[in-house]
Amino acid sequence: MPGKYEELYDELIKRNQEIAIIGSCAGLLGWDERTYMPRSGAQARANQIAYLSGLAHQKFTDPKIGELLKELEQSPLAKDELSDSAVNIREIRDEYDKLIRVPQKLVEEISHTTTMAQGIWTEARAKSDFAKFLPWLEKIIKLELQLANCLGYKKEAYDALLDNYEPGSTYESVVKVFAEFRKELVDLVATIKDSKRKPDLSIIEREYPVDRQAIFGQAAADAIGFDFASGRLDVTTHPFCSGISPGDTRITTRYSPRHFSQAFFGILHEAGHGIYDQGLDKGHFGTPRGHSVSLGIHESQSRMWENFVGRSKPFWKHFLPLAQKTFPEALKSVAFDDFYFAINDVRPSYIRVEADEVSYNLHILLRFELESALLKGDLSAADLPGAWNEKFEQFFGIAPKNDAEGCLQDVHWSCGYIGYFPTYTLGNLYAAQFFAKVREDIKDLDRQFAVGNFSGLKTWLNKNIHTHGKKYRAQKLVQVVTGQPLSHKPLISYLRTKYGELYGF
Amino acid sequence: MPGKYEELYDELIKRNQEIAIIGSCAGLLGWDERTYMPRSGAQARANQIAYLSGLAHQKFTDPKIGELLKELEQSPLAKDELSDSAVNIREIRDEYDKLIRVPQKLVEEISHTTTMAQGIWTEARAKSDFAKFLPWLEKIIKLELQLANCLGYKKEAYDALLDNYEPGSTYESVVKVFAEFRKELVDLVATIKDSKRKPDLSIIEREYPVDRQAIFGQAAADAIGFDFASGRLDVTTHPFCSGISPGDTRITTRYSPRHFSQAFFGILHEAGHGIYDQGLDKGHFGTPRGHSVSLGIHESQSRMWENFVGRSKPFWKHFLPLAQKTFPEALKSVAFDDFYFAINDVRPSYIRVEADEVSYNLHILLRFELESALLKGDLSAADLPGAWNEKFEQFFGIAPKNDAEGCLQDVHWSCGYIGYFPTYTLGNLYAAQFFAKVREDIKDLDRQFAVGNFSGLKTWLNKNIHTHGKKYRAQKLVQVVTGQPLSHKPLISYLRTKYGELYGF
Repeated sequence: MPGKYEELYDELIKRNQEIAIIGSCAGLLGWDERTYMPRSGAQARANQIAYLSGLAHQKFTDPKIGELLKELEQSPLAKDELSDSAVNIREIRDEYDKLIRVPQKLVEEISHTTTMAQGIWTEARAKSDFAKFLPWLEKIIKLELQLANCLGYKKEAYDALLDNYEPGSTYESVVKVFAEFRKELVDLVATIKDSKRKPDLSIIEREYPVDRQAIFGQAAADAIGFDFASGRLDVTTHPFCSGISPGDTRITTRYSPRHFSQAFFGILHEAGHGIYDQGLDKGHFGTPRGHSVSLGIHESQSRMWENFVGRSKPFWKHFLPLAQKTFPEALKSVAFDDFYFAINDVRPSYIRVEADEVSYNLHILLRFELESALLKGDLSAADLPGAWNEKFEQFFGIAPKNDAEGCLQDVHWSCGYIGYFPTYTLGNLYAAQFFAKVREDIKDLDRQFAVGNFSGLKTWLNKNIHTHGKKYRAQKLVQVVTGQPLSHKPLISYLRTKYGELYGF
Repeated sequence: MPGKYEELYDELIKRNQEIAIIGSCAGLLGWDERTYMPRSGAQARANQIAYLSGLAHQKFTDPKIGELLKELEQSPLAKDELSDSAVNIREIRDEYDKLIRVPQKLVEEISHTTTMAQGIWTEARAKSDFAKFLPWLEKIIKLELQLANCLGYKKEAYDALLDNYEPGSTYESVVKVFAEFRKELVDLVATIKDSKRKPDLSIIEREYPVDRQAIFGQAAADAIGFDFASGRLDVTTHPFCSGISPGDTRITTRYSPRHFSQAFFGILHEAGHGIYDQGLDKGHFGTPRGHSVSLGIHESQSRMWENFVGRSKPFWKHFLPLAQKTFPEALKSVAFDDFYFAINDVRPSYIRVEADEVSYNLHILLRFELESALLKGDLSAADLPGAWNEKFEQFFGIAPKNDAEGCLQDVHWSCGYIGYFPTYTLGNLYAAQFFAKVREDIKDLDRQFAVGNFSGLKTWLNKNIHTHGKKYRAQKLVQVVTGQPLSHKPLISYLRTKYGELYGF
């Protein structure tokens, strides 16, 4: 017979599993909304998702959860901090507190304001009219500060917001690693910019028939280990990966008939997210122990497959001959080095989502510095465009011509996502540090890739990262897996080596 | 300020709308399960649907609903029997009573038994082994009798079951119309069988490329009035229509690359269901007033578009030239009359789902007579195969070679669907009676069809049938719309005229 605490724990888990089932229903509705839903279904879909979200929120903020946690935190089940039960109790507490600390009124005000703000932002960006967006940005910053105050923090309001996306990470820890990274990265981007060597981009801007892109992309996702018996690949406008439930993980992409890279590397990116979701422990579904660590760790998986693997030489040793068979008109007479250079073009540009794997991080560092300054009050929202442009020139050596390609380009702030941007670069940093460790553990990794064998890497990621769920917080996971604290060095060293060879420095 | 009863009524409606939202979420999950779900997602999907069904059941059997109904039934809101409020109170009462009268234990036993029985039935049919299925069929009949006793009935246990699918219809009323119909129908099928004229079926069994079938089928569904801004057409194994929510109605089909009729008339059939769902009053979504009447009335809509319109001469006056352009290899040199005859082939056959629009009804009459005899105890389950074969020969003039093509062919009984079959032929009878009235009201109907104009019919159906929701029960609706009680005469007359011309009698 189970003891008293076991029964309480089972009750806590059962309630979390119920919430997870509700969430997984909403997950499918969300996937469908962005793939197949007929356009007149939008209003009813909003009602469905709002209903399920409300239901899940109500179940999660049930005071009974608080009572169960209180008892369990004093129990033997919370003792051994790496045991499944202790992990679940710790992480459910974290999420529960985040939910109950924020008054419903504030939740609704943020939701209402950001819904409106996204509409305004769309118009403002179209007209490059920052003044139109300004009052909304000001209001969002005020609300996010209120939110941070409700959530609570030790040092910086920013910590409370960052913790929603990258639990356990702090402003201070991010500033430290980003500052060192920034110094070297600005130099690296400038060096590449000044290099006389440039790839022939016309290679990837030829005719790539969409139906064949779909087959080739799906074959590549399958080859790296995305399981299509437990997943799908569909078309959407803004690609995403949705881990709906155990055995059902869906990735999406967008095809451009005259561009090879957009869909292909997008598919590898989403497949990387998908392989993470597929690698989570199904027996722990519906509990933190079976859930991904953080946005940053999730991004480390997508970026690893997209860039560290997908834009590598050995990967294309295997895939270029197949690509040449699939797209003979575009690729038949293309030399390996020219193709490899074309998919690794680096140059300063204004739009984050179109940036290469080197300069991408500068876009993030810039946003991080600006949004944290806005939150601290060191920068007023009205001064954002000036600050953006000044910093942009300082980072990239070029200046945006207008706010549409400057501070108005991203939807995030209009959604109230402050503290979200750093997770992109954290993902790249984690990926580099993990990948360096993979190279130590699998000596012939490049040889495996060159013959189309990606199972060594996938198995390593399954074992060292995916299967742990939320056992470790992100930075702790980095320490446990690599034996080192998070550092910018593996990423900068990877970039220097790879791009030094391409650009001749 | 609303009065007391208005407040109670609003509360009742709010609860029903909430249940409808839960149902619409389950609807999308069910659609996805049968179209796009990856196969490893099945277990989680079953959990999701079971969760939502349980939640809806719990909300609907909340005693508060009973209390609200009790008060409202005595109120002025229930007085005027055709008012929206009276209709909703009456129909919610009907559904509420059906749910609370059946003990949870019986619901679970039926669910468990039929889940098992479907597996057994699949095996039994594959091996044509009735003995294997017999004990399950016996158990299901016993359970369905218990169910009927819980639900209550005046004359026949069958009434209680039939009422689940065709509310308000009784065994007696169905027997009456079916008996008269049967006499004439057996003769008609025999006459056609004996005719020397036979169509050249090779016309529709040529190469019909699937991608072009999809385009042509979608164009036809669009032309008859299925709104693709509020709907979709996808591929599945067993085609269905799912009215998920206002603005989101999805139809499905299955393509055979060497058969024209299967997918094409299937699409018209499902589009007919879809046009009904799209024509319901969106303002009444989530209440009986915004819900379809019954399975039979739903089937009347699908059969009208599939057969009365889709297999008619004027329809093909418009569509054959388009079909010839779409499928030149198969149809270029085909004469109109030969094509028209080929899509209207009638001959006795063993399998219901492959039957033509004439003999189809005999399949239903046979099942109705047998399942009602089983329920009454006039026929024992063990004697079913013999009774089936004997009646089959009497109806069709041919006898099945084995039980797989005889009494084991349909899944329905293994699902516990007793009282369901008659709705198919009721649908055809309703369709014929409605269509005769349409011809009275729209004098140049054929001329409209011949130039591809189907909006006259669609508008008529919207106005006379769809928009009423559950205002009238099925047989009452027939009376109101056509001014006559339900009769077999319009259908037999339609069939005699159409097939007399084709088969020369």
